[in-house]
Amino acid sequence: MKQSQLFYKSLKQAPKDEESKNAQLLVRGGFIDKVMAGVYNYLPLGLRVLKKIENIIREEMNAIDGQEILMPVLHPGENWKKTGRWDAMTVLFKLQGAGDKDLVLGPTHEEIVTPLGKKFIFSYKDLPHAVYQIQTKFRNEARSKSGLLRGREFAMKDMYTFDADEAGLDKIYAQVEKAYKKICERLGIGDITYKTYASGGTFSKYSHEYQTVCPTGEDTIYTCDKCKVAVNKELINELKKCPECSNSKLKEQKAIEVGNIFKLKTKFSDAFNLKYVAEDGSEKPVIMGCYGFGPSRAMGTLAEIFNDKSGLIWPESVAPFDVHLLNLKADNKDADKLYANLIKQGIDVLYDDRPEIRAGEKLADADLIGIPHRLVISDKTKNKVEYKKRGDKKTKLITDKEIIKKVMGNK
Amino acid sequence: MKQSQLFYKSLKQAPKDEESKNAQLLVRGGFIDKVMAGVYNYLPLGLRVLKKIENIIREEMNAIDGQEILMPVLHPGENWKKTGRWDAMTVLFKLQGAGDKDLVLGPTHEEIVTPLGKKFIFSYKDLPHAVYQIQTKFRNEARSKSGLLRGREFAMKDMYTFDADEAGLDKIYAQVEKAYKKICERLGIGDITYKTYASGGTFSKYSHEYQTVCPTGEDTIYTCDKCKVAVNKELINELKKCPECSNSKLKEQKAIEVGNIFKLKTKFSDAFNLKYVAEDGSEKPVIMGCYGFGPSRAMGTLAEIFNDKSGLIWPESVAPFDVHLLNLKADNKDADKLYANLIKQGIDVLYDDRPEIRAGEKLADADLIGIPHRLVISDKTKNKVEYKKRGDKKTKLITDKEIIKKVMGNK
Repeated sequence: MKQSQLFYKSLKQAPKDEESKNAQLLVRGGFIDKVMAGVYNYLPLGLRVLKKIENIIREEMNAIDGQEILMPVLHPGENWKKTGRWDAMTVLFKLQGAGDKDLVLGPTHEEIVTPLGKKFIFSYKDLPHAVYQIQTKFRNEARSKSGLLRGREFAMKDMYTFDADEAGLDKIYAQVEKAYKKICERLGIGDITYKTYASGGTFSKYSHEYQTVCPTGEDTIYTCDKCKVAVNKELINELKKCPECSNSKLKEQKAIEVGNIFKLKTKFSDAFNLKYVAEDGSEKPVIMGCYGFGPSRAMGTLAEIFNDKSGLIWPESVAPFDVHLLNLKADNKDADKLYANLIKQGIDVLYDDRPEIRAGEKLADADLIGIPHRLVISDKTKNKVEYKKRGDKKTKLITDKEIIKKVMGNK
Repeated sequence: MKQSQLFYKSLKQAPKDEESKNAQLLVRGGFIDKVMAGVYNYLPLGLRVLKKIENIIREEMNAIDGQEILMPVLHPGENWKKTGRWDAMTVLFKLQGAGDKDLVLGPTHEEIVTPLGKKFIFSYKDLPHAVYQIQTKFRNEARSKSGLLRGREFAMKDMYTFDADEAGLDKIYAQVEKAYKKICERLGIGDITYKTYASGGTFSKYSHEYQTVCPTGEDTIYTCDKCKVAVNKELINELKKCPECSNSKLKEQKAIEVGNIFKLKTKFSDAFNLKYVAEDGSEKPVIMGCYGFGPSRAMGTLAEIFNDKSGLIWPESVAPFDVHLLNLKADNKDADKLYANLIKQGIDVLYDDRPEIRAGEKLADADLIGIPHRLVISDKTKNKVEYKKRGDKKTKLITDKEIIKKVMGNK
């Protein structure tokens, strides 16, 4: 992609209406654009990052045999009245459709997926099932000033499982734990994300959050560095020590919740009377679980964590492009050639070909956008190319051949 | 994908609450599930079709240098008041957010993309731009009983263009015409889809609709078979003959509008004061265009057109799977082997491995789902496989090797 054509403009200053670092950097770099508090446009650069995060999550859900579906944004209000959440959930966006029908903008989809399950699940032979979607969710937050960390409209991967018994639920629950660990590793936050014990609601002792340590996070967790789990603030007074290794030296840290897994058991199958006929002929409620992971919040989290004073530093797995090629020469001839060559090799390149932009500004924009591999062609580089990894200080003159090795090394 | 695990159940009868053929077939085949009138769940089979249609559209938009972005569902009401459509558009879903803020669920995105353009467009050097999204849209239709043809919640590809002058607009307009022709060809409706002259609103003489001829369509068009264009009902009394070749023998036909292209000119740039500084230093309004193509309506259209009394007949380009493999033997051993082999060759297979389902039911389900290539392993097929193309009558015994040629022949 030629930067001269990219639908974006970087901002030298952080926008005045953004308090959070992630929004400041993402708006300045031309990744997102604020429509109103908690609601953003994703620009070409930002949508590339979001889609890469979503695809990582999708691949790991498919790997544990999750089946992708898509449930709607508009929910019948009656379903929410049936579960009691029409009144209980304060952040619900409510509206009326034709014929004064009460509607809800889905903040989560148990009220849709449980009645859906009733259509396909009758017997123990129809179990288990794990379905997931990557869908936009809505929460009518009173305040929304944390950029992508707490949106009124945001992306969510939510998986729901249907099992015949708790053993089945435990099995898929453990599989999702492993999948979430892989997702966090692939996003570059594997070593700072903790499976965190949280209270489980009516039906389970615990639920689990995936909390990524970050000084600006709005949650407080207590981490155990022996077994890499943590305890949520609401549970720490009850548990006092690590629930897995009994270590009592826990460290208080700020964190961002990027995912959660939750045993619903029969909470929603009871509400919608979702039952199946067991092998012995008896009728039993279906056992359910739900598993969330937020792609847009993960994007905000990465922006919040991976940056320096000059801008963003994306992990290779989610960077909008593999390579940022900057031409600082008066004419674009050599850079055009290299650009064409890199594309031919299957490398995704953002190419700063803008003719009237000063070298200093191009370099500053590259730091702000934060693509991992930077290549510069200038009068000084002769028949070589200057290479710098975003975040490193030193540059190096390399040949065309070495570029491929540098860029594709980790793939 | 093994059919025994697929999240779906086919229905022998058309659901009573669906009048349209597309919804009857898509619900019966387990592609979609009705949540309420005009609002559907996409099940694994249906989401595969929808995504394939979306990707065809995406590829053709990228090919004309459209840049993909994602604008939100939630719009500030004030933007709609500014253009007068808060009152003028009767199908607008309105709601209130925190702080009694008026909100709209986007039925189209001029009210978002025009203010967005203001952030990146200042000078003639910042033009042209073409941005598009594939996003869920909302229309509060009084009645919604045409399945995917007229949803309250539906998928839409909408592109918006920004140009310095009308010559620029004409150029991109012509490119989109070509892209839409390609999309229709790839969807298998190239020969029955007509570029249709429609009235252009305040600023343009004509707009153009892409109308697919279909006896159950709700639009009426007048087709010219000489130059493959048509005239909309609202224009026919004014034009009387083909606007391109003056042929007056036009044929009245029913059709479904799958896309439209529209010169907005300065309608929205005036409303939001979107101007640029021209080369001569003068300030001029940006010239805009908009270009819609509905993936979910296209899916409904294909279902409406490509079927017979036994079920759906998907074009290869959008079929949920390449091959439907049915095992009619008592044990799955041979079919398991063929399934593994086909997958290894990169073929997408739905494999009916269900142990307790009768042969007749498996064959009926295969016809209903409508995957183009059907393979049957039974006691009669010995060391060969029975091949049938969906829609053809005759079957043929073929070898493993011939399968690849049959299936991949058109790829």
